[in-house]
Amino acid sequence: MSERASTAAGVFTQNRVVGAPVKVSRARVPSTSARAVVINSGCSNACTGERGVADAERMTALVAEQLGCAPTDVLVCSTGVIGHFLPMEKIAAGIPAANAKLDASPEAFHAAARAMMTTDTVPKQAMRQVTINGTQVTISGACKGAAMIAPNMATMLAVVMTDAQLSPEAASTLLRDAVTRSFNCISVDQHTSTSDTVLLLANGAAGTDAGRSPEFATALEDVCADLAQQIIRDAEGAGHFVTVDVTGAKSYADAYQMAKAVADSPLVKTAVTGNDPNWGRIVSAAGYAGVPFEETDCSLTVNGTEVYHAGAPTQYDESAVSATMATGEVHIELSFTLGDAKCRCWTCDLTAEYVRLNSDYTT
Amino acid sequence: MSERASTAAGVFTQNRVVGAPVKVSRARVPSTSARAVVINSGCSNACTGERGVADAERMTALVAEQLGCAPTDVLVCSTGVIGHFLPMEKIAAGIPAANAKLDASPEAFHAAARAMMTTDTVPKQAMRQVTINGTQVTISGACKGAAMIAPNMATMLAVVMTDAQLSPEAASTLLRDAVTRSFNCISVDQHTSTSDTVLLLANGAAGTDAGRSPEFATALEDVCADLAQQIIRDAEGAGHFVTVDVTGAKSYADAYQMAKAVADSPLVKTAVTGNDPNWGRIVSAAGYAGVPFEETDCSLTVNGTEVYHAGAPTQYDESAVSATMATGEVHIELSFTLGDAKCRCWTCDLTAEYVRLNSDYTT
Repeated sequence: MSERASTAAGVFTQNRVVGAPVKVSRARVPSTSARAVVINSGCSNACTGERGVADAERMTALVAEQLGCAPTDVLVCSTGVIGHFLPMEKIAAGIPAANAKLDASPEAFHAAARAMMTTDTVPKQAMRQVTINGTQVTISGACKGAAMIAPNMATMLAVVMTDAQLSPEAASTLLRDAVTRSFNCISVDQHTSTSDTVLLLANGAAGTDAGRSPEFATALEDVCADLAQQIIRDAEGAGHFVTVDVTGAKSYADAYQMAKAVADSPLVKTAVTGNDPNWGRIVSAAGYAGVPFEETDCSLTVNGTEVYHAGAPTQYDESAVSATMATGEVHIELSFTLGDAKCRCWTCDLTAEYVRLNSDYTT
Repeated sequence: MSERASTAAGVFTQNRVVGAPVKVSRARVPSTSARAVVINSGCSNACTGERGVADAERMTALVAEQLGCAPTDVLVCSTGVIGHFLPMEKIAAGIPAANAKLDASPEAFHAAARAMMTTDTVPKQAMRQVTINGTQVTISGACKGAAMIAPNMATMLAVVMTDAQLSPEAASTLLRDAVTRSFNCISVDQHTSTSDTVLLLANGAAGTDAGRSPEFATALEDVCADLAQQIIRDAEGAGHFVTVDVTGAKSYADAYQMAKAVADSPLVKTAVTGNDPNWGRIVSAAGYAGVPFEETDCSLTVNGTEVYHAGAPTQYDESAVSATMATGEVHIELSFTLGDAKCRCWTCDLTAEYVRLNSDYTT
């Protein structure tokens, strides 16, 4: 909740099937009068037809009643199982109870970050401060997500707040750019959710406009990338954090497509599970990404050791590379000789525990 | 091996990174003088540079020596781990030994189907006979594959033989059409292999041309679909066979894209593992396939029970549907109101055993 009217921007899932809260919030941004975001977890209120939309609207009306603002100045997000209706009695009782506990303390923000968790094991928060024209501004965000993570121009729930002043146009552009290189660069299981939402609220309390500040843009991208990486570190069942760098591509789009194919491959991810530098799986995943290249254009380094050079295997110590992977941090660097473009994506391994968690979620 | 010169057609992986045998065989089809296909398993001879190509060519020369034909009349396939060189001493000793055992018995064909297996647990063969202009012709095929299965205009190794007569053009067209609706419609783990190859050899021994016979085209598609489904039934670690039907789409391409998204989703596949009719995952996978539709256009039936109708959940007995899934056969029917096009794909569940098998394959 912001005491002041805030500029609000949002990016939302590109799934054709979207949750009711996405339909409601999407229609309310960009805005210059946003006052609050209300979030529930456990039920995503997705695939729930007209009743779902009415329920999401009612959530915002209940918050507006507490704050004395218009329902359209409240945004709403829900996360959890798809296809069930919200328990509106609990929601109606919970909103005044939550409002009574609102304060500006770090503990309250932490409690909110915790309340939006589903299968997350830790709350996810990030903060940066930058000075613009001598005025310090703060960017602070929280997000949730551990599976059904393959954001497409959006991501799982994240709310980023700042006391900088931003026009709706600047807020939208800055958020979209930051999301492109942060939330859109992570994948747990390539399943784009129906509820993905990132909201940016800027209430201008710091008294300085940040719309043209490169430092602000960088800090905003840092907050988003920090939150995005926290999702991967808490990915369901995961034991490894994997950074995939593609360099030397013709365009960012090409680099992204190849990095994504590697990050999404179940065979790459299970090889990582077994600390197995099975580089054939990595190279062949880049090969089916739809980007033209010759094998001789491509080299591959895993945790600092070159295992494939210009289309041919190198001699290297497999067990030494395997030992570095066992630390839980894996850095895959695919370099091409096609251009100057590059992209970094983050993913996790695929474990038996992920399978166990997801074979037994609703029934 | 065919005693007579055969028409040969082939379709190959669309991966940018291809095995040496694919490079060699691709250049030798279509052909009217093919005599044999030599296949090894355990080492795919992929990502092996120029030495790999020389090794693949040498394999065909060794076979040609035995048969008294030109090396270019021999096709070659390899399957197994990527990035290792072939043990050419073993290959050079094995080819004459295999040639000495060649005969026309069903046992020999079965032995060949068994010899091309890697992690397959059963050999995969299929046969159909059709009568064309009063002459009976036979189509017989074998294939292998259990993971790294997401064929893109090709598939894992399959060889289909017929005694019908076909021109190279007819053989190529018939094979491509049959593969489109069979091997290209299966996915174990969406990882397109570097070695995918389907070969069709037609030696004309039956004495009738089958190039314009619709019965032959159907029988060929049946053989390919039969083999493709055998791959899914033997998929690594799988406990469920899943048929995904998309109907009522605007085009085959749209239907295929949505069926593929459902078949590839780890969340759909783990729900199947747990016999969980978690239909939100199915609908949302169709939603991110990139095909435009409104939620009210879409209904979903799982094993005969409608669980989602025109964009809203139905009332149904979850435990009854779950019990039908526990039989190991799952039929997902996504129907749209957008047109008349349809597509059927086949996939399997994603299990902890798949993860175990693939976390410990090379090291």
